[in-house]
Amino acid sequence: MFVTLYLKYYGEKNSGETESPSEPSHNDSPLLWDPWKPCRRPRAFVKERLLRLRVCLGTLCGMEWYAYAALGILTAVLSFLMDFSVSKLLRAHQWLYMKLEGDILLMFLCWTLYPACLCALASSFSHSICPFSTGSGIPEVRAMLAGIEMPHYLSLTNMFTKFVGLICTLAAGSTVFLGKVGPFVHLSTMMGAYLSQLCTLIQHPKEEKAAGEMLVVAAAVGVASCFGTPISGVLFSVEVMSSHFALKHYCPCFFSAACGAVTFRLFSTWSGDEETLQALFKTNFPSALPFYPLEILLFAFLGLLCGAASCCYLLCHRRVLRFTKTWPVLADMLTTQRGLYSGMGVFFLASLTFPHSAGQFMASKYTMKQLLTSLLDSGLWCAQSHNASVPIDPLSEWSPSGTSVWLSLPFFLLMKMWMLVLACTLPLPAGYFMPVFVWGAALGRLLGEGAAYLLMFAGGTSDQQQASINPGGYALAGAAAFSGAVTHTLSPALLAVELTGQFTHAVPVLISTLLANALARAGNRPSFYDALSLSKRLPYLPSLRKAGPRLPSTPIGQVLGEKPVQLQKADGPAEVRRAVSSSTGAQIPVVDSHESQVLLGFVLRSDLLRLLRHRRAESGEKRLDQACCIRPASVLLSPHNTVQQAHTILSLTGAQTLFVVDRGRLLGLVTWPEMKRILEDLAREI
Amino acid sequence: MFVTLYLKYYGEKNSGETESPSEPSHNDSPLLWDPWKPCRRPRAFVKERLLRLRVCLGTLCGMEWYAYAALGILTAVLSFLMDFSVSKLLRAHQWLYMKLEGDILLMFLCWTLYPACLCALASSFSHSICPFSTGSGIPEVRAMLAGIEMPHYLSLTNMFTKFVGLICTLAAGSTVFLGKVGPFVHLSTMMGAYLSQLCTLIQHPKEEKAAGEMLVVAAAVGVASCFGTPISGVLFSVEVMSSHFALKHYCPCFFSAACGAVTFRLFSTWSGDEETLQALFKTNFPSALPFYPLEILLFAFLGLLCGAASCCYLLCHRRVLRFTKTWPVLADMLTTQRGLYSGMGVFFLASLTFPHSAGQFMASKYTMKQLLTSLLDSGLWCAQSHNASVPIDPLSEWSPSGTSVWLSLPFFLLMKMWMLVLACTLPLPAGYFMPVFVWGAALGRLLGEGAAYLLMFAGGTSDQQQASINPGGYALAGAAAFSGAVTHTLSPALLAVELTGQFTHAVPVLISTLLANALARAGNRPSFYDALSLSKRLPYLPSLRKAGPRLPSTPIGQVLGEKPVQLQKADGPAEVRRAVSSSTGAQIPVVDSHESQVLLGFVLRSDLLRLLRHRRAESGEKRLDQACCIRPASVLLSPHNTVQQAHTILSLTGAQTLFVVDRGRLLGLVTWPEMKRILEDLAREI
Repeated sequence: MFVTLYLKYYGEKNSGETESPSEPSHNDSPLLWDPWKPCRRPRAFVKERLLRLRVCLGTLCGMEWYAYAALGILTAVLSFLMDFSVSKLLRAHQWLYMKLEGDILLMFLCWTLYPACLCALASSFSHSICPFSTGSGIPEVRAMLAGIEMPHYLSLTNMFTKFVGLICTLAAGSTVFLGKVGPFVHLSTMMGAYLSQLCTLIQHPKEEKAAGEMLVVAAAVGVASCFGTPISGVLFSVEVMSSHFALKHYCPCFFSAACGAVTFRLFSTWSGDEETLQALFKTNFPSALPFYPLEILLFAFLGLLCGAASCCYLLCHRRVLRFTKTWPVLADMLTTQRGLYSGMGVFFLASLTFPHSAGQFMASKYTMKQLLTSLLDSGLWCAQSHNASVPIDPLSEWSPSGTSVWLSLPFFLLMKMWMLVLACTLPLPAGYFMPVFVWGAALGRLLGEGAAYLLMFAGGTSDQQQASINPGGYALAGAAAFSGAVTHTLSPALLAVELTGQFTHAVPVLISTLLANALARAGNRPSFYDALSLSKRLPYLPSLRKAGPRLPSTPIGQVLGEKPVQLQKADGPAEVRRAVSSSTGAQIPVVDSHESQVLLGFVLRSDLLRLLRHRRAESGEKRLDQACCIRPASVLLSPHNTVQQAHTILSLTGAQTLFVVDRGRLLGLVTWPEMKRILEDLAREI
Repeated sequence: MFVTLYLKYYGEKNSGETESPSEPSHNDSPLLWDPWKPCRRPRAFVKERLLRLRVCLGTLCGMEWYAYAALGILTAVLSFLMDFSVSKLLRAHQWLYMKLEGDILLMFLCWTLYPACLCALASSFSHSICPFSTGSGIPEVRAMLAGIEMPHYLSLTNMFTKFVGLICTLAAGSTVFLGKVGPFVHLSTMMGAYLSQLCTLIQHPKEEKAAGEMLVVAAAVGVASCFGTPISGVLFSVEVMSSHFALKHYCPCFFSAACGAVTFRLFSTWSGDEETLQALFKTNFPSALPFYPLEILLFAFLGLLCGAASCCYLLCHRRVLRFTKTWPVLADMLTTQRGLYSGMGVFFLASLTFPHSAGQFMASKYTMKQLLTSLLDSGLWCAQSHNASVPIDPLSEWSPSGTSVWLSLPFFLLMKMWMLVLACTLPLPAGYFMPVFVWGAALGRLLGEGAAYLLMFAGGTSDQQQASINPGGYALAGAAAFSGAVTHTLSPALLAVELTGQFTHAVPVLISTLLANALARAGNRPSFYDALSLSKRLPYLPSLRKAGPRLPSTPIGQVLGEKPVQLQKADGPAEVRRAVSSSTGAQIPVVDSHESQVLLGFVLRSDLLRLLRHRRAESGEKRLDQACCIRPASVLLSPHNTVQQAHTILSLTGAQTLFVVDRGRLLGLVTWPEMKRILEDLAREI
């Protein structure tokens, strides 16, 4: 904290210097000259050391690389801490539940009230401290990556709230069936934004970097640190961009993701969970003959099945989202009584999954991790229940008391589908990727078991035939395909491979994911995150395009706001002062005269401020073009350019302001705040 | 061929229609009305069928998706055919060499003349048919992906020449030590360009697509079909872009790469090489404990070592490239006597690798594939030679007649380094990635063996200790790190993992590659491909930036060519005719008057042509602004924008022409041909 304060001070000094280079330069230890600050000598001493450290570090590589490494490592530490606390809380619940064995009422209360209280706590806590911390966070991250500024979503308060809230949600276990990825990507971007600020303060003012860079890297780190999967993290970061991925972010993404993944896995190793750096969900698929070439067709069919299922799921999700907004009772409850709503919702879900009621048919005793591990098992369940031999471990929950897996798997799929849709309405910090991943794995498992059973039935019960089809592979492909289809992304294919370390199945998994995506994207339907974006009216162009394909083609001239503050080249100090006080933009356009409106260029607001300060001393009455440098306008747009084009140029060229001119005459400005306003207006039209 | 001809005809008809919609529309079967064309009825019949097929296919998805699938499948077929022919030719050489056993002179002649003749053939053949087919092709592909048009490099003749030439080069075996990837990416782009043309002809004229899209996809397919590695193909395609990767290419890349990889692997399976779809270089690393966490440090050290080695290699390569241009004898020989030079060079290399001379110390009997497989072996060589037990298969060539691997591995590294630099000067169609990959594997192997030996020495010769370090893992990491450092890319890390199917080593491989890249990129040194680009003076901006960091910041106003052809709004038909005949651009700017030079917009050349055609009939004398639609200029640049910015805007907005204006007055145009000229001028300044 002390370092931060110091750095802030130092940064202010630096930025002060850049604004007024003509002022007498500060002494090397300016702290000595601020008599009102305490502990001047120790502070000066620390400052000297820090400066020397900065020089020392700077010789090796740019300061931003240390920030990338720190981002990866810190996010991984957060991830490990979260996993650790969640596993402790889950074990406490299990222990309590086991202790109450015998008394069914107490067991029921323990089973239901524990998650209900946790979720109610998560909901009220996150809402009372930072209302922006609920939900997944990925829609907001996407909008921020597209260039829109949303400072509320990047505050440290939000980070703290989201972290604590997410622990509570995850500790509710597989009852609420929610995950970690989405909020973790959001947490990582908050960490990235904070480190980026810190980095800007430390850096020489010359080498200023856009904060956007750190956000792109943070998106990759979020996924990489969450599961220890660096490469799919980078792919996720490529996919999450709105239109283009800049190659300059590529190496930082990989570097930071590798740091995060290594740290996460090292922590897992050191904490005694694993012997070495391994995949999170290590599987034991046979490697000699992972699958027959003809099974590719079955994997393709699975992809289509997952695509169709994702369409159903997304339709339900969109309906429910609209319902929560239009039904007054629910809408009212979601705005005023969030904690109560969460608690009641989770109580309802938990009472359904109570192991002595319907829960016994959907393996409700398993945590999310155990669910996935059991589904990815390479053994054949149907053969085991068919042969009536002793059920081995993965089966113990899937077919308790001899229930066939043919009953429990479809029941699980059917129930979890609508329960998940219901869980998505809870106002909690929660991720929606992992549940979808597990659901897809169950669907794949069902198909794999079915195919293996048919093959066994057709070819007798020889052992050779039984070994031929590995339902675990189908579960893997189903998980990747369904989660890819729901989110309209392809990175889950690589994520599935990295999570399990099963490279033998990379090709079938990719095929399933591609086909599922093709089906889910047909007809320009919005993805899961698009639906959330549209529901929250976020100013995110690609989502808007899906809701109203013509909206981004609106000519920019039609949606421009009122005439911007502008200066004439012959303006004096009075007009300059008025312009500075009425405009907030960093660049103020200068025209030839108010009648001709011919754009000459722009002046920097900081230049004008300096000019005004000096004038007070000189009291000269120079004209603007004599006293101040008029910079040439960079990129000009015509009013016929579309909003889409303006957005692309704004985000890709790094220009702060685009000037819209018609035959040399200024019509308006497009800046990021203006673009945000335009997009929000467009979102309102849907 | 008939289909192509038909489609060309149909395409011309279509484009004719779009140009002149006012003309009376053609009959449904226009072929019936062309009396000079033969076989009218069968042609009309075929056309009807084809039209129906197109409608049928079009209902499922856009025509371009079929083209993507075809691209993947055809490239994979090419790749398989090439591997097949090369393996036959290599086996023929081996057979001949074995038959001559006993007569050392004949053996020497067989060993040296076979590859020398093949390479001389490849060189003269490729030069006489299409001189653009020599070299790797990746520098040219990068320039084309950046938007520069280079039609010579995409012709079908070039494809044929490169295919045949590459087979000859590869059949020369590990003697010349050259690979397949680079030319294959080039082959794939040629195939993509051809399919893109075909697709444009078939498609409805409305849904025209930029040909660039197919090239990006083709880059991914090239790598994916070459090795059956879809995901690293896509990563390669992301990396090979100059500044931004457009997200709209992401799914096509994955789809096409998956098609290519599956086809390639299915062919390998069907041809009997493998039982199922597996990695090309399947390894047998132990999966229980692949490596200790502390070995990460050793992998990091290996990365730094590879980075340093790559700097040496790149320095030698740049020196030799300059030498071949400045030394008159060599420069003369490379322009006139290419076949002779290649033959002599390969003869020299082959005589060095002759197994009865120095070749016995560098495993020269192995092909490239066998070299890599032997290096990736998980057994410990030093233990085997140490224990003087019977050498198993991978050792048989690395330590023939009891030579220690401590002699043969360093000797291999030392000799192959300069031999590879020499081989890079040969004017052949050849890839330079695979040899670098193998060299890196050897370096990694050496380090791994050394570490294992030290550990064994320190801890006695217990079996537990021997099993602890797997030198194959180091070979894998070394291969990825060295090839990544030489090419300044990170995709080799994933490629190494996909090639071997060893996901257990993904994290160490990534760390090595990152560190090697960091060292190789320090100081803004050009990569291998950058050196080739600069040597060939290709108009590729990122390479130019490395040679002269200030060049891309040149203001566009300074490098603009002469005043473009322009029209006044009051111009009559005579001026229009003059403008059309003197300009070749698709968009001709219109100014208010030649004196004021205020830009009003542009007219399309096709509009003007139609106008002139109609005028002949009407003989009216309308002014331009009355007779023709003046379209508003889209994106305007100021003369102070840099070349870099202009390049970015041109490639990202998809605009054909950028107008450079100063206060509304037209200064010049920036089109792709103009940009090419500007970049070539800049390249000449270095």
